[in-house]
Amino acid sequence: MDFSIRAANVEDCKDIARMIRELAEYEKMADHVKVTQRDLEQDGFSKNPFFHGIVAEVPEQHRTKEGHTKIGYALYFYSYSSWAGRAIYMEDLYVMPEFRGKGIGKALMSKVAQLGLAAGCNQLNFTVLDWNKSSVDFYLSQGCFDVTDKIGYHCMRCEGEALEHLAQP
Amino acid sequence: MDFSIRAANVEDCKDIARMIRELAEYEKMADHVKVTQRDLEQDGFSKNPFFHGIVAEVPEQHRTKEGHTKIGYALYFYSYSSWAGRAIYMEDLYVMPEFRGKGIGKALMSKVAQLGLAAGCNQLNFTVLDWNKSSVDFYLSQGCFDVTDKIGYHCMRCEGEALEHLAQP
Repeated sequence: MDFSIRAANVEDCKDIARMIRELAEYEKMADHVKVTQRDLEQDGFSKNPFFHGIVAEVPEQHRTKEGHTKIGYALYFYSYSSWAGRAIYMEDLYVMPEFRGKGIGKALMSKVAQLGLAAGCNQLNFTVLDWNKSSVDFYLSQGCFDVTDKIGYHCMRCEGEALEHLAQP
Repeated sequence: MDFSIRAANVEDCKDIARMIRELAEYEKMADHVKVTQRDLEQDGFSKNPFFHGIVAEVPEQHRTKEGHTKIGYALYFYSYSSWAGRAIYMEDLYVMPEFRGKGIGKALMSKVAQLGLAAGCNQLNFTVLDWNKSSVDFYLSQGCFDVTDKIGYHCMRCEGEALEHLAQP
């Protein structure tokens, strides 16, 4: 199937917000999604954006029954490892279920890797839910490794009232 | 003990590079450190920096026997959660062993939280080595939670030849 990958622009935020919700539903975490289309527009497409995005599109003749032609996306931002230096972080990688198995996810991830290398990054980092075996297997097949299993890194978070409290001098 | 926390500048990179090595030695990972003072200067203090830093300093009369007055640091960068929106990521938090237990680590982390909130961030994220129980306990005492244990997120990475290969179209 024909598809194309391109940089996301502000007009894509409606579809990205829709796919963020679809991905969260797949991950059984839909109630965690607070980000809106407007948040994406402000946070990704103003000065000093907090993230960048790419979208996968199919031609009109392959649009979904709901009329969607934007059928996959990845979000990423630049980050840093105090050991390895410049790094790129892939926040999300998603392809709508009916378009899987066609190399679109691989193409999106490959594009993120290209962008990272072009910026001098030595690592591509991301997280995966450990029960999402098909995703874990896909990533391992691409030469990625599980840093949590191999080195013992755990993701930690502070948010909400705890974050407000921590910020008190 | 008196100490102060301030934004890092390019002149701090020598001490930050030293403390990055000290932290990696503590974490038994010294051979993983590829980042040099010059990398830090270029990647953190040029246009579009990949990270920001803060340093903790003590007055001259409390300098170490090697003459150091910069005795702690944190590195951070802005990131994004497709569920929660703007986030700040703390890449490193370190206080030299002889200066621990004086609230300096807490003050550094508090400053990162303040910077995050000021930028509209809803989360402070970081990683910790699961065997580093004193660090884990400190973070839990500050209201942080273990996302890996609680939700099952694993850190994944692609680097080196695998990253080059992934980037091939």
